[in-house]
Amino acid sequence: MAVGINATRNCQLVEGVRLAAVKSHIRYPGRLDLVLIEIAEGATAAGVFTQNAFRAAPVVVAKEHLQLFSSRYFLVNTGNANAGTGAKGLADARACCRFVADAADVSLAEVLPFSTGVIGESLPVDKIALGLPDAFAALSADNWLAAAQGIMTTDTRPKTATASIDIDGQPIHVSGMAKGSGMIKPNMATMLSFVFTDAAIDKAVLNKLLKKVVDRSFNRITVDGDTSTNDCCMLVATGKSGVSVSDSDATTLEKITEVLQAVFQQLATDLIRDAEGASKFITLRIENGATSKECLQVGYAVAESPLVKTAFFASDPNWGRILAAVGRSGIDSLDIAGIKIFLGGVCLVSNGGVDQNYSEDSAQAVMDKEEVEVVINLARGDCVETVWTSDLSHDYIRINAEYRT
Amino acid sequence: MAVGINATRNCQLVEGVRLAAVKSHIRYPGRLDLVLIEIAEGATAAGVFTQNAFRAAPVVVAKEHLQLFSSRYFLVNTGNANAGTGAKGLADARACCRFVADAADVSLAEVLPFSTGVIGESLPVDKIALGLPDAFAALSADNWLAAAQGIMTTDTRPKTATASIDIDGQPIHVSGMAKGSGMIKPNMATMLSFVFTDAAIDKAVLNKLLKKVVDRSFNRITVDGDTSTNDCCMLVATGKSGVSVSDSDATTLEKITEVLQAVFQQLATDLIRDAEGASKFITLRIENGATSKECLQVGYAVAESPLVKTAFFASDPNWGRILAAVGRSGIDSLDIAGIKIFLGGVCLVSNGGVDQNYSEDSAQAVMDKEEVEVVINLARGDCVETVWTSDLSHDYIRINAEYRT
Repeated sequence: MAVGINATRNCQLVEGVRLAAVKSHIRYPGRLDLVLIEIAEGATAAGVFTQNAFRAAPVVVAKEHLQLFSSRYFLVNTGNANAGTGAKGLADARACCRFVADAADVSLAEVLPFSTGVIGESLPVDKIALGLPDAFAALSADNWLAAAQGIMTTDTRPKTATASIDIDGQPIHVSGMAKGSGMIKPNMATMLSFVFTDAAIDKAVLNKLLKKVVDRSFNRITVDGDTSTNDCCMLVATGKSGVSVSDSDATTLEKITEVLQAVFQQLATDLIRDAEGASKFITLRIENGATSKECLQVGYAVAESPLVKTAFFASDPNWGRILAAVGRSGIDSLDIAGIKIFLGGVCLVSNGGVDQNYSEDSAQAVMDKEEVEVVINLARGDCVETVWTSDLSHDYIRINAEYRT
Repeated sequence: MAVGINATRNCQLVEGVRLAAVKSHIRYPGRLDLVLIEIAEGATAAGVFTQNAFRAAPVVVAKEHLQLFSSRYFLVNTGNANAGTGAKGLADARACCRFVADAADVSLAEVLPFSTGVIGESLPVDKIALGLPDAFAALSADNWLAAAQGIMTTDTRPKTATASIDIDGQPIHVSGMAKGSGMIKPNMATMLSFVFTDAAIDKAVLNKLLKKVVDRSFNRITVDGDTSTNDCCMLVATGKSGVSVSDSDATTLEKITEVLQAVFQQLATDLIRDAEGASKFITLRIENGATSKECLQVGYAVAESPLVKTAFFASDPNWGRILAAVGRSGIDSLDIAGIKIFLGGVCLVSNGGVDQNYSEDSAQAVMDKEEVEVVINLARGDCVETVWTSDLSHDYIRINAEYRT
């Protein structure tokens, strides 16, 4: 299942980026499972990585390499996460980088490895080595869709996003992709996402920009509350457009932040629309909280409640379960009388109970849609946060009882 | 589904306690749904209640009454939780207490109300009033099983526990019951549980005892992480055995704590065995933590991970998911190299990856059982905690997509 139609987007080219996706038989035959991304010299790169204490080997190596050198190649494989693989996993991740570095005549630390798939099995380094010559041969500036497909695991469709803006009459392009469908509650990171722009942005500014836009996109989604061991999100600025973005130019900085935010949010919400077993796309808007933190506390308590999620799966406007989840979210001295809960435009809860104008028919009409917005007004302050999530369906159970992550 | 066979236990009588269960057609016809428990004069009572900010009306009234007077009657209805019902809900709960008080010639505050079932609908006070005469007529000292059945909602079987000890040659009896199957993560409380002893225990000591034993029983279980709006757990000491327990007699206090702990733990683990859709009973033992708090943090992260729970449903010894959940549990500076994870006696994880002696066959043999123990050794200190949970199955989704809590 997935919410909405598969609106596969072609990406605009980003000068300085070439991509390739090939079949290297890592876990399944006949599947694009090895992606190589080439970045022109002189680009800057920023990354955020999973906060899971059990970071997979490629995450450890990618973080290390990102700090040492500018990045020239991203190597991504699916089918095997190279996680929980100890010292051998680290050696395997480095060996794959070495193959790329030797073939392209760059240094080891200019190559960053990314893996996603089954946890706890050895990375088939030999298969990756065999696939690399084809990948180098296939590098092309317009391979975005193939690359987005090549990083999929339980995803049912590729996710890309693209946008452009003019700065002083000069076009800037942003294009990117993401994958992820289950084990999704990114924490300062995402599943795998790679976004590229041809703006010139120095590394310190790029890091700040990435953190900011991730915090309002990938860090606001949850499928099942499970933070993966392999989450990585990369943002690369090739500089090829000739347009520079710096800390000192507030207008340009704001413009680029906006376009990046749009692309990241598109990718993050696309992950939720394609969440494992999803039949509903749910936007939770927590308004008038005293702090952002408490808004998120309420948002995630509701978003991760199995009872709320199964009610959404059943298209049941079961406000009692939403109210119970808000009530257990751990907010100090919550005044239940002040709280209002809306489904679409329909007020469900006010004055500590069902709203007096509530009608099950209007709530049911909202619930019958694929995309549903819940607004929870805490009446405690001015903070607002949005969290996106999916429902909990039989397909989620089936997928995760059958698939070995 | 439920784990294990239905070992319905007869309870020993507790002098000073009489019980009745009748059919009052609150939601379904032909179902025991109204339970009346009579407590002899001179008893002491202690209670712990849900920490959910949206406390149901009966919880508010029961807490209030418990503080004012000694308790003489518990009135429990199923089919309707009287939660999210605002001021009317409070008036309805008090009206039901008033019927009992008038019929029994006691004061209003000597009656405590308890409700469980659908959230957000008005309590059918008239039906309860109509059922009460039959309930009074049916009061009997040996009605434990009927009462345990009368408090059930989605439970598939009644839960009782009973035990006795001798203190200085004098017998003391403890008997009780509990209900609950979904929306279960008690927090300083449980779903509904009522336990009685004929020991004489003053109220202050009884409160301490209850808190202590609840913390190691009902406060260590989770089905779905959802704390209910209606959780209550009551402990009553009738004093009819003539044996007194006081703070100053350490030996007696220890003996009574032990027997209460056994009864409470039996009831709490019975809730998990009968959790909604449960096909597995899972004991998570977190060893060698630096603090109890961090042991529980790890325990609940694993116990509530949908991916871990679906792996258990599939009988899949998927240690990667357990490891990922431990890794995201938010423990400061967790040294993954030191952590060991065992399934039954089989070591799954050591040195940050799969244990070198791990065999899928032995792990599978453990997984194929209905009752599975997972031991997670954090190698950071001396604290130990145990958390009990169930798996996440198609039946959980079916039950909660069909049933309106």
